[in-house]
Amino acid sequence: MDAIFAPRSVAVIGASSDPKRIGGRPVDFLKRHGFAGSILPINPKSAEVQGLTAYPSISDVPEAPDMAVIALPAPMAVKAVEDCAARGVRGAVIFSSGFSEVNDEGAALQARMVDIAREGGMRLVGPNCLGIANVRHNLYATFTPGVEKHLPRSGDVSIVSQSGAFGSYCMSLVRMRGMGVNIWATTGNSCDVDFADAVAYCAQDEHTRVIMGYLEGATDRDRLVEALELARANSKPVVMMKVGRSAVGAEAAQSHTASLAGSDAVYDAAFRQYGVYRARSVDEMFDVTYACSGSSTLMQGDRLGLVTVSGGVGVLMADEAEDWGLEVPALPDHAQKKLKEVLPFAGVRNPVDVTAQLVNQIDLLETNMDVLFGDGDIDGAIIFMSTVGLVADLNEAIRTGLERIRDKYPGRPMLFCSLTEPEGRAAYERSGFIVFEEATRAVRAMAALRYFASSFERLRESDPIPELPSLSPLPDGMVNEIEAKALLAEAGIGIVRETLAKTPEDAATAAEDMGYPVVLKIASPDILHKSDIGGVALNLRSAEEVRSAGARILQLASEKMPDARIEGLVVAEQAAPGLEAILGVAQDPAFGPVVMFGLGGVLVEALGDVSFRVAPFGPAEARRMIDEIRGRKLLDEFRGTPKRDIDALANALARLSAYAAHHGAALESIDVNPLIVGAEGESAVAADAVIIPAGPNPD
Amino acid sequence: MDAIFAPRSVAVIGASSDPKRIGGRPVDFLKRHGFAGSILPINPKSAEVQGLTAYPSISDVPEAPDMAVIALPAPMAVKAVEDCAARGVRGAVIFSSGFSEVNDEGAALQARMVDIAREGGMRLVGPNCLGIANVRHNLYATFTPGVEKHLPRSGDVSIVSQSGAFGSYCMSLVRMRGMGVNIWATTGNSCDVDFADAVAYCAQDEHTRVIMGYLEGATDRDRLVEALELARANSKPVVMMKVGRSAVGAEAAQSHTASLAGSDAVYDAAFRQYGVYRARSVDEMFDVTYACSGSSTLMQGDRLGLVTVSGGVGVLMADEAEDWGLEVPALPDHAQKKLKEVLPFAGVRNPVDVTAQLVNQIDLLETNMDVLFGDGDIDGAIIFMSTVGLVADLNEAIRTGLERIRDKYPGRPMLFCSLTEPEGRAAYERSGFIVFEEATRAVRAMAALRYFASSFERLRESDPIPELPSLSPLPDGMVNEIEAKALLAEAGIGIVRETLAKTPEDAATAAEDMGYPVVLKIASPDILHKSDIGGVALNLRSAEEVRSAGARILQLASEKMPDARIEGLVVAEQAAPGLEAILGVAQDPAFGPVVMFGLGGVLVEALGDVSFRVAPFGPAEARRMIDEIRGRKLLDEFRGTPKRDIDALANALARLSAYAAHHGAALESIDVNPLIVGAEGESAVAADAVIIPAGPNPD
Repeated sequence: MDAIFAPRSVAVIGASSDPKRIGGRPVDFLKRHGFAGSILPINPKSAEVQGLTAYPSISDVPEAPDMAVIALPAPMAVKAVEDCAARGVRGAVIFSSGFSEVNDEGAALQARMVDIAREGGMRLVGPNCLGIANVRHNLYATFTPGVEKHLPRSGDVSIVSQSGAFGSYCMSLVRMRGMGVNIWATTGNSCDVDFADAVAYCAQDEHTRVIMGYLEGATDRDRLVEALELARANSKPVVMMKVGRSAVGAEAAQSHTASLAGSDAVYDAAFRQYGVYRARSVDEMFDVTYACSGSSTLMQGDRLGLVTVSGGVGVLMADEAEDWGLEVPALPDHAQKKLKEVLPFAGVRNPVDVTAQLVNQIDLLETNMDVLFGDGDIDGAIIFMSTVGLVADLNEAIRTGLERIRDKYPGRPMLFCSLTEPEGRAAYERSGFIVFEEATRAVRAMAALRYFASSFERLRESDPIPELPSLSPLPDGMVNEIEAKALLAEAGIGIVRETLAKTPEDAATAAEDMGYPVVLKIASPDILHKSDIGGVALNLRSAEEVRSAGARILQLASEKMPDARIEGLVVAEQAAPGLEAILGVAQDPAFGPVVMFGLGGVLVEALGDVSFRVAPFGPAEARRMIDEIRGRKLLDEFRGTPKRDIDALANALARLSAYAAHHGAALESIDVNPLIVGAEGESAVAADAVIIPAGPNPD
Repeated sequence: MDAIFAPRSVAVIGASSDPKRIGGRPVDFLKRHGFAGSILPINPKSAEVQGLTAYPSISDVPEAPDMAVIALPAPMAVKAVEDCAARGVRGAVIFSSGFSEVNDEGAALQARMVDIAREGGMRLVGPNCLGIANVRHNLYATFTPGVEKHLPRSGDVSIVSQSGAFGSYCMSLVRMRGMGVNIWATTGNSCDVDFADAVAYCAQDEHTRVIMGYLEGATDRDRLVEALELARANSKPVVMMKVGRSAVGAEAAQSHTASLAGSDAVYDAAFRQYGVYRARSVDEMFDVTYACSGSSTLMQGDRLGLVTVSGGVGVLMADEAEDWGLEVPALPDHAQKKLKEVLPFAGVRNPVDVTAQLVNQIDLLETNMDVLFGDGDIDGAIIFMSTVGLVADLNEAIRTGLERIRDKYPGRPMLFCSLTEPEGRAAYERSGFIVFEEATRAVRAMAALRYFASSFERLRESDPIPELPSLSPLPDGMVNEIEAKALLAEAGIGIVRETLAKTPEDAATAAEDMGYPVVLKIASPDILHKSDIGGVALNLRSAEEVRSAGARILQLASEKMPDARIEGLVVAEQAAPGLEAILGVAQDPAFGPVVMFGLGGVLVEALGDVSFRVAPFGPAEARRMIDEIRGRKLLDEFRGTPKRDIDALANALARLSAYAAHHGAALESIDVNPLIVGAEGESAVAADAVIIPAGPNPD
């Protein structure tokens, strides 16, 4: 990959003398923007291109370049890759369209090209992409007009985008917002180097501090997860834009890209699981990136301090902080007392309002910050100065005060928020401060600094995936209810005691053994929704009740589903009343087996109040999954019902995820509905379950 | 009020020769910024202030000024108001602090000052405020440093802020964002002219097109509502910032202001009810204001068109549009066909992706817009041009094309979204276009244009508040369940048939008359939560069951609540099964009687899924209220349950609101829990109700 992102020499195949043409732009950019290595234009018709010696073909160059840019029509591009491989070129960036984004023929062409490259030990970026850049090396292997006039400065933000248009837009915006870029990569059809590869490269790149990603759809879950985990392990925040969360959006995204997009809720969950920050707007993406760039500090706890010259904006920020899960704790009494001594009419609770008096008494801010951090146990602070930042001499005094505070309390992020003139702002930035104009955006950025700190902390958490004993293989065909629960029981998931009875009389005998009350259910691999046909009887309290209910169930089943194979009756102990949860496993097109959790009844059905995780995961991750649903408080002591056994629930989820991961693609889906969650310490048991194997492998 | 906001002459009482002091600033601003009327400094110690003739007191000025600015300590300010009233001054802006914001003594001083002003026919702004401005008149009756160096241009945005700090910040930001200001008012302690008065003034001001409001807490509901309705009647969008939605925020807001803040959810509902746009961030506030200012057009339908040069951003905008309730409909086939003819590889569904080809074929955009509006029945469009707006000649071509489209299809808003240089942006703005840099913010602004159009449309909707027949007076003391329902029945709200029985035997007789099944409940004004003590028996099917249940209920009541007054047993028909709704009335400190709606069970209890409206309102408003809850779909056909009688539910809510408004402050609260909503056409009946009168009037 270094051959592509840090080459010593670059050939441009299809180089044009016209610096505005696709084949001319990379020559122009490389030359004009100061790429230090050799630039080797390849053009069969001209011995010179834009003042550089040109060669008729790649075989004619005096020495094999590390990398080639290919700006030729599709069939010729394949030939060029072949020639490059033969010449020992190690990587190529292919602009050409006409491949898999067009039709099957193009896809076949693309596949052939990849085969050639693999055989020749070459990596390929594209085709149908806008190219790549390495700003530190003045390497612009791209034809984006975005770098024609203005270049970003060299810096620590790397950008990986599946879309060329979005990638270009990002590079311009990063520049206009004063940040610096290191690697820029657009992956286009991603025939070889894909989004995950490029992220992984940036994750290992010492000059990259934060990675911006634009993803339309993932195709290789394992490599994507690996890349994200690598970034996390190297403490590099990944800020992601993944569009298509609405119905229209998802449809439009599919018409826009060949990738089969996974469910948006699953992307959302996966990003949280792997510590990626998902931005919902371009502003948010850039704000968060900005806050993570430079010499910024992550926020090591939830306690946010707010210092303002406007009580109202203090409240606005407190509102926003709550939305993002940050605490704005009241300062301890002794701290409040200290602040009152400094300025009797200040707001001292937190938000701290130093009022317009700050203008007359500029050291107020430093004093306040000292109390906030020294006495208030605050993990990070936002300083909202309204229009004060427009005044040059005040700015100078504020900044030097904040520098002293930063030296005294390192590791606690401070965001400065004020209207500023460009020069005032630049002075803060040179000094390493992050500057926002808008109060709520500063809060959101701070929340992101907390988000990444938590995400990086989780790497140190021990959360082993449950080890499962040796498991029975998945049956080939339908799995009946008893078998399904037996399989889950092997994975260590609690189930109700139950047995299969052939006849109502057998059922009565089994019930006598089991003890009352019992539940009776029709046993048939063909009847999934038993209660819809009257196939379930609850709370039976005697042999007589079991006999008559059993007879009724069998009769209803034969009337309503005459073709169903009937195996008899399931006799199960009636589970103690508990809260009903729904656990599920499904195959996500992007992430493979994913686990779903929700609480039974209207929460799932009317509100879709569920959470997801990519399998497998441990119980601690399961607890976070549980905490995400809106109806979470039903699991605590609630209106007379006891606190539920959340340990048992988390354990069941983690075990289900391990089971799902074990079977992988062999499993189509699992539904555990309900899992009855008892009171704390009482465990959780599956009262019903459906397992659907994926069936015979289509390969 | 014109005396204050458009005076011909202004006295500055407490005028200082130092233009940096509070008493010096207004003199400096009025003089330097070109106020055309007379400026009359009042200073007993100096015959000249900042080059102007000064007078020892207001009685010495040659002619009474329309308005006086008072920059004196509190007690002297009261005296100054007295002198002004005597001299015939019609209005005053009082900067002085030391009034109701400090303590009771200050409040008394303030009350006295208001009495003096009222007697003298004077209006007062402040005290404890930053003053007011009228930019068209170069009137700066303020000491905010925000207008020391830079003035906003004269324009159509008026700003009303309870907070001086926030008001100043707003004025600077409006200026920096290139918008123009007309009226600017900070109301401080709002002793006379309050937030509502200032909004009402702007609502009637011909030069104001949009009103920005910053509200901490309302004190006079009727005047606030009147002002908001006036703005709506005059088609002036009101964009409001009301902080304090979080728990910490609300607490901080109360420590910050003397106003007793109402529940934030009620403010939220009231703003929606009266068509006010509530912004959640400063960016949003300014984006929406910007989109409503100038010659912008509201959006007359929900159908949004998106034209982009980046498929990804198209999807991002579609996502955002869904969040804000806008449709991004697929274009009709013939329109898609037309677009494909123009550019075969374009995305043509909507979002329309003209791709980077636009750069080579700039008239693509005009053609596309023509198809969008001409064939696509689209109500408004966002044109996302990524970095294209940075290129001057492309900009010129795009702009003139859009101008032709605007002339051809007037009344359909078009927002231009691109990175731009300041000059390029200004050219669009001069031509009357709204320009955003960020795609999701453009969508949000468009949604606001739709919001105001809907809000203004609703004024033309006929939604009469139900007329109630003559009602019984509210009882003085406790109201028992039967009485409560009888009172609601008078208001036309359906209730279950029921009767009071003294003994279990009487109950059995009553049940025989009524027909089975019946419900039996303890009747006691002292027992509010009947089922908690076993005071309810459902589904009784015979005289014998009624007798024994009645005896048990009476016994449990005497055991568990021996001091409760027992009136007997309520015998009620068992309502047909339906969906249980909860209707409530409460007194909001800011808005008086408000009505709450939610669906029974976990939705209300675990998720707080309720909506509010200020009473009274009509059935159409009630339907909007019903549509706001998250669990709304439970009222439609849902998993085998029928569609519910939403007409009956809306009617019950509207009647309850009329009932609440009728009794006003005499009512503490009403709970109708449950209202059983039958299937469509089956009506809705209150199965239980609690009415708590406010009790003896404390006055």
